[in-house]
Amino acid sequence: MSLLTDTSAAIRPLDQAAIEAARARQEQLTKPRGALGRLETLSIQIAGITGVPRPRLNTPAVVVMAADHGIARQGVSAYPTEVTPQMVLNFLAGGAAINVLARHVGARVVVVDMGVALDLPPHPDLLVRKLAPGTADFTREPAMSRAQAQAALEAGIGVADALIASGVDCLATGDMGIGNTSASSAIVAAITGRPVAEVTGRGTGVDDAGLQRKVALIEAALALHRPEPHDALDVLAKVGGFEIGGLAGVMLGAAARRVPVVVDGFISGAAALIACSLAPAAQPYLIAAHRSVEQGHQAIFARLDLEPLLDLGMRLGEGTGAALGLSLCQAACKVLDEMATFTEAGVTDRT
Amino acid sequence: MSLLTDTSAAIRPLDQAAIEAARARQEQLTKPRGALGRLETLSIQIAGITGVPRPRLNTPAVVVMAADHGIARQGVSAYPTEVTPQMVLNFLAGGAAINVLARHVGARVVVVDMGVALDLPPHPDLLVRKLAPGTADFTREPAMSRAQAQAALEAGIGVADALIASGVDCLATGDMGIGNTSASSAIVAAITGRPVAEVTGRGTGVDDAGLQRKVALIEAALALHRPEPHDALDVLAKVGGFEIGGLAGVMLGAAARRVPVVVDGFISGAAALIACSLAPAAQPYLIAAHRSVEQGHQAIFARLDLEPLLDLGMRLGEGTGAALGLSLCQAACKVLDEMATFTEAGVTDRT
Repeated sequence: MSLLTDTSAAIRPLDQAAIEAARARQEQLTKPRGALGRLETLSIQIAGITGVPRPRLNTPAVVVMAADHGIARQGVSAYPTEVTPQMVLNFLAGGAAINVLARHVGARVVVVDMGVALDLPPHPDLLVRKLAPGTADFTREPAMSRAQAQAALEAGIGVADALIASGVDCLATGDMGIGNTSASSAIVAAITGRPVAEVTGRGTGVDDAGLQRKVALIEAALALHRPEPHDALDVLAKVGGFEIGGLAGVMLGAAARRVPVVVDGFISGAAALIACSLAPAAQPYLIAAHRSVEQGHQAIFARLDLEPLLDLGMRLGEGTGAALGLSLCQAACKVLDEMATFTEAGVTDRT
Repeated sequence: MSLLTDTSAAIRPLDQAAIEAARARQEQLTKPRGALGRLETLSIQIAGITGVPRPRLNTPAVVVMAADHGIARQGVSAYPTEVTPQMVLNFLAGGAAINVLARHVGARVVVVDMGVALDLPPHPDLLVRKLAPGTADFTREPAMSRAQAQAALEAGIGVADALIASGVDCLATGDMGIGNTSASSAIVAAITGRPVAEVTGRGTGVDDAGLQRKVALIEAALALHRPEPHDALDVLAKVGGFEIGGLAGVMLGAAARRVPVVVDGFISGAAALIACSLAPAAQPYLIAAHRSVEQGHQAIFARLDLEPLLDLGMRLGEGTGAALGLSLCQAACKVLDEMATFTEAGVTDRT
């Protein structure tokens, strides 16, 4: 046994008693039944996740995992690889979009170096779980070893464990890594069997020629490595990224401890595919925050049967969509917990 | 001249200099251009509305206007008319969904009695602008006089003026009034020319027979009164509601004072149709918060060329969608104002 298999095996179904209690309470609150739509179903899901009939999400954290990607040397991004550590420093200085949005929703930002090419100076908000200074270029060789893939997942489980032990009651995921839409598209194509061209988008904003080149590189890499679609560790090792493995581990760790996970965009979605391939029981613990512009995102929702909360034309990653989705989860819980019932408020219910 | 015509005439185009400054700043922030999608365009719109290149929305208020409707006596709602004042008391006690969501996003709730059938006890958060104890039953006679329609609009302008003078920098709209989806559907059909059946939904949740009856009543009323589609005061007088007129006034008052208005669902949308029919220049000051389940909402978006921020299957009114949309507006402004630029953060921009 390993931390990975133990954690996967520890994930239980949602708590039906808490679900029924939350559903019954929603029926008594001063509004027409169902009139708050997704906020109502979300609150019921979170009750089932946490096992608490009137859950609160008071202490959320956004976990932003960063790593570099060998494939970035092939020019698949509009930005150079030096941007990965530069943006990590921006996260730590509080100047990035995720910092602004996390402050807006009252969430802490935890940055994890899963494999940034440059060594970063120590910082209280930075966890160093570096597996290597970036993955290998998967257009030529596997991105990482199978042992590294497992270690990335277990590092993520460990991060989730530590945060939850410190009192965090809701996790949101985020990513940073120049080249990581290429790795994510490769994962999505490998696991879902969809054509690479269908699940590959412009990432940070490559042009038409760049997009064609990106698709061709991923197609060639999948033909070279032939990852086994049902073996998520094999897929992660051959075409993945350290931050993607880490985020999948965060999802498994949170699910095993009955903590909701608000999943950001395309890269976090690729991590969710890995997580649910390893442990299908993790799926109901995931809340899809938003629909990214990145076109492969839809294939993830279809495979995992998830429906995103938001659709705002975003494609930044970092956990920016997850932060906004997290606020909706908190709102849903507050509605369930704080609203008056028909009886309490003296409001006449429908006959 | 009147307060209504003066206010309508005072609405200026958006401030192009502030728009250009906001757009230029968005280009310099540490993210791929356009990667925050709707948050970016929203921040630029709010800059244009306020005339401030880096606007903040620090002191928002949700204005919930309540009134009764004569048509409710025809059984068009799943709830009895006594629920209107009961829910107003629930708002004032802090137990309704809008209270919970307004607290969540840090907004004040201001309740306005525009024409509730029952007289309500004084309360510091209740403004009484009662035009009558409910409208007349518009299936038999005009809902109100033309003078009352104008007075409802001017009361709304006055509420917006007073709130803005007290420091409120963003207004969100909300409604309460048993029967008011019927009035709103009648307004939408009258102004857009769409068939009543296409713009009429289940409101609080009437069954199939109730929906057919509601459609037939509205069709008959429009045939009886023949409101002039291009004369919004005539439409409001013949089939409207006091809270709908008041909310249209709030929109005009806010637009005239360069304050953004976050528009809630179907009833607020009908008010937006009235406002923009009276003063087309008000349109860019409106931000559509969410897409309601109520099917006529789409006709409003199409006519006003608005795209809602959220689509969460909600249909409660009260300003609940607007409160959530308001939080996105605040987030958009914070991104524009607080994020570091490439230069400030030492991040390499794309070449």
